[in-house]
Amino acid sequence: SGLVLVKNPYLDLMEEDILYHLDLGTKTHNLPAMFGDIKFVCVGGSPNRMRAFAQFMHRELGLVGDGDDVADICAGSDRYAMYRAGPVLSISHGMGIPSISIMLHELIKLLHHAKCRDVTIIRIGTSGGLGIEAGSVVITDTAVDSSFQPRFEQVVLDDVVVRSTELAKDLAEELLICSRDIPDFPTLIGHTMCTYDFYEGQGRLDGALCSFSSEKKLEYLRRAYDAGVRNIEMESTAFAALCGLCGLKGESCCFHLL
Amino acid sequence: SGLVLVKNPYLDLMEEDILYHLDLGTKTHNLPAMFGDIKFVCVGGSPNRMRAFAQFMHRELGLVGDGDDVADICAGSDRYAMYRAGPVLSISHGMGIPSISIMLHELIKLLHHAKCRDVTIIRIGTSGGLGIEAGSVVITDTAVDSSFQPRFEQVVLDDVVVRSTELAKDLAEELLICSRDIPDFPTLIGHTMCTYDFYEGQGRLDGALCSFSSEKKLEYLRRAYDAGVRNIEMESTAFAALCGLCGLKGESCCFHLL
Repeated sequence: SGLVLVKNPYLDLMEEDILYHLDLGTKTHNLPAMFGDIKFVCVGGSPNRMRAFAQFMHRELGLVGDGDDVADICAGSDRYAMYRAGPVLSISHGMGIPSISIMLHELIKLLHHAKCRDVTIIRIGTSGGLGIEAGSVVITDTAVDSSFQPRFEQVVLDDVVVRSTELAKDLAEELLICSRDIPDFPTLIGHTMCTYDFYEGQGRLDGALCSFSSEKKLEYLRRAYDAGVRNIEMESTAFAALCGLCGLKGESCCFHLL
Repeated sequence: SGLVLVKNPYLDLMEEDILYHLDLGTKTHNLPAMFGDIKFVCVGGSPNRMRAFAQFMHRELGLVGDGDDVADICAGSDRYAMYRAGPVLSISHGMGIPSISIMLHELIKLLHHAKCRDVTIIRIGTSGGLGIEAGSVVITDTAVDSSFQPRFEQVVLDDVVVRSTELAKDLAEELLICSRDIPDFPTLIGHTMCTYDFYEGQGRLDGALCSFSSEKKLEYLRRAYDAGVRNIEMESTAFAALCGLCGLKGESCCFHLL
């Protein structure tokens, strides 16, 4: 049917669902009217960047009016920012797995309540590249954890639930074909490693509060490269796992910063 | 000496340390002049709330001028917000362990570069209470993980480093004594459980994308209560572990929302 699958039977029995961190709710807002026609959702860490992306989409889609005054739909919350440009929703998710996980829970329930169909969700973020040219874009085929495994471990109460982190391969191929129109950014498909930390977790010798050997770091990164990892960031496994759980077509593309 | 301990010898060899997510750095800013007299750092999730806290401190300390126009020291970054009122720094950390971990790395290096002495750091956040009155404040003696253990597991490259999550017990007692002057908020000392997720990790039957039995949830929360847990949030283990690692006197106080 193209609808979003929410595997929690309690949800439709609730009188009201408050999407607290988005400052939206089923009683306070007419979600089908506000969001029913959304077809694409783009998510990224920084609120300013997601605002700039919505303004860019507004211009690209040739929409009426000035894209510069695009309004933050979640202005009543300072946790996330959300903008729309035609059928495209642009939302920030902050940094790290717990932060994107809260946002995705509420976003996916929003798409469910709004009865959206055939939604594609794309994470557009930044990452550190591994053995690739600075300024490259990595389209993720599979998100992997710090042991290079395609899995996301979610603690549900005291059980550990292991979920798959494969992303939509056909969408990855489609995005790669699109990228050929933009020769400025070398684009490739590869695995993306997701860590729980920016400094120690990614072996930033110069930035961490503890020290470790640069030999160990190089050996680890070499093993990561050999396992197919081409970039490192902090949200992709949770993103892939939640998209997969709810039947959403998801993809992650990250720009490798200089 | 009261200085902050940074156990990374590379740090003092670096020509420049860029605290990227705070938009500060050792070459671009005179950190000792800007922050050398800081004695208290208060951290919390929401940027708006940390701004309001700085304004409150400005008034409480009877500082000159209008506290309302307090400036965001990290205005060039949309990742975190930072304000100061006299010797008190007030900083947001976003939601979840990875987000607070990035902020604390850069904050602790800032305190190190600024040669601050005898700094006390307090997390002032919100949490869900367990078997306590709504509106209570829980002062954390020990942060525990979802197995009720006083530990924080940090992946450093592919090693798992286990760190203690005990907080400053004398500071907890001191804060409890202070709380007696404010009878509106019942205050207690207890363990705080830290999870990686707000919905599934904390058993929110009504909010999660998957379902689980309410019996299992009640049984788990009962075991948590019996282990001494009085509230649940998403940052305390990383906060306690990083304060302990760097010799910072740290405490966490959370308000149990209604």
